[in-house]
Amino acid sequence: MEFKYLIIKNRSYRRFKQDYKLDMDTMKELVDFARLSASSGNIQGLKFLLSVDGQKNSRIFKHLKWAYYLKDWDGPGEGERPGGYIIILGDTEIHSTIEVDVGIAAQSILLGAVEKGLGGCMIGSLDRPGLRKDLKIPMQYQIPLVIALGKPNEQIILEEVNDTGNIRYWRDENNVHHVPKRSLDEIVIY
Amino acid sequence: MEFKYLIIKNRSYRRFKQDYKLDMDTMKELVDFARLSASSGNIQGLKFLLSVDGQKNSRIFKHLKWAYYLKDWDGPGEGERPGGYIIILGDTEIHSTIEVDVGIAAQSILLGAVEKGLGGCMIGSLDRPGLRKDLKIPMQYQIPLVIALGKPNEQIILEEVNDTGNIRYWRDENNVHHVPKRSLDEIVIY
Repeated sequence: MEFKYLIIKNRSYRRFKQDYKLDMDTMKELVDFARLSASSGNIQGLKFLLSVDGQKNSRIFKHLKWAYYLKDWDGPGEGERPGGYIIILGDTEIHSTIEVDVGIAAQSILLGAVEKGLGGCMIGSLDRPGLRKDLKIPMQYQIPLVIALGKPNEQIILEEVNDTGNIRYWRDENNVHHVPKRSLDEIVIY
Repeated sequence: MEFKYLIIKNRSYRRFKQDYKLDMDTMKELVDFARLSASSGNIQGLKFLLSVDGQKNSRIFKHLKWAYYLKDWDGPGEGERPGGYIIILGDTEIHSTIEVDVGIAAQSILLGAVEKGLGGCMIGSLDRPGLRKDLKIPMQYQIPLVIALGKPNEQIILEEVNDTGNIRYWRDENNVHHVPKRSLDEIVIY
């Protein structure tokens, strides 16, 4: 698949076909993409906690905050929730979490997921103490990011940021999700 | 190109065919991959300063610190230096730099470069005040990361971290670069 297509297809999906089951082998393949990606000073301080189990997924789900700009939406309802999660942990016995590494790993995972016909969303807004307690995550690990994964079930349209400069994504009356992106001219400096 | 191949081929290249010229259109295509990637809260606070010009490249090069673990190597010599750079800037008029976004953008750029037969290296260790002064980068912008790009001219071998836990990359007598990676078993948590 052409890389540009992968990039365009890799949207932040928040609604899924919940009955589509993810398996552990697929999840491990995705983590392997992160494993083989760059790490600052090659330190490799990240760990990856996996879930494809319905009950465990529910325990994770309830601590996540979805789509900040969609004030009337509490996140995906029953039937459209993620089929699994990769929780990125920072192992402080190796190093305090390097956030750039988190972004590198997460992007590798999601691009790899898209090639497999899957998709997902990086979620940095969550109740960390609650998730830690429910999943018994030792204090040794920081919890920088959760990646929700599954078979996407929503339409997302990219559009250009207009003169108002508003970058808030929004949903139209057909539940199509619109994402304003700044133009290349706005972000390139010569 | 299969994504797994792209991931494996995307090594941190530090030696290049310096006479291979990069052009601005290619650089802008790479930035476009970053532009269309995820951004926390869709804030899109990053800017991208481009260079494919020999003189400008030299002004950037002298502020970079290369390959921390290779104590006997001062970085690529004349003839094997990068053909260009993408300097990632954080526009503080939009938001203080979100490091996860930096990682996402940099990974998109480098994977895209590999598909084009190019490659590069993320460099976070640099003389920021010196670079700022030489390139007249306004104080409005933070400088989280520099990406060196070019036509790679070195062999890199991935190997598994052994029992000592040593993650330092090293070069053998033939100048082949070896990078130890932790195993999947070590980084996956169930």
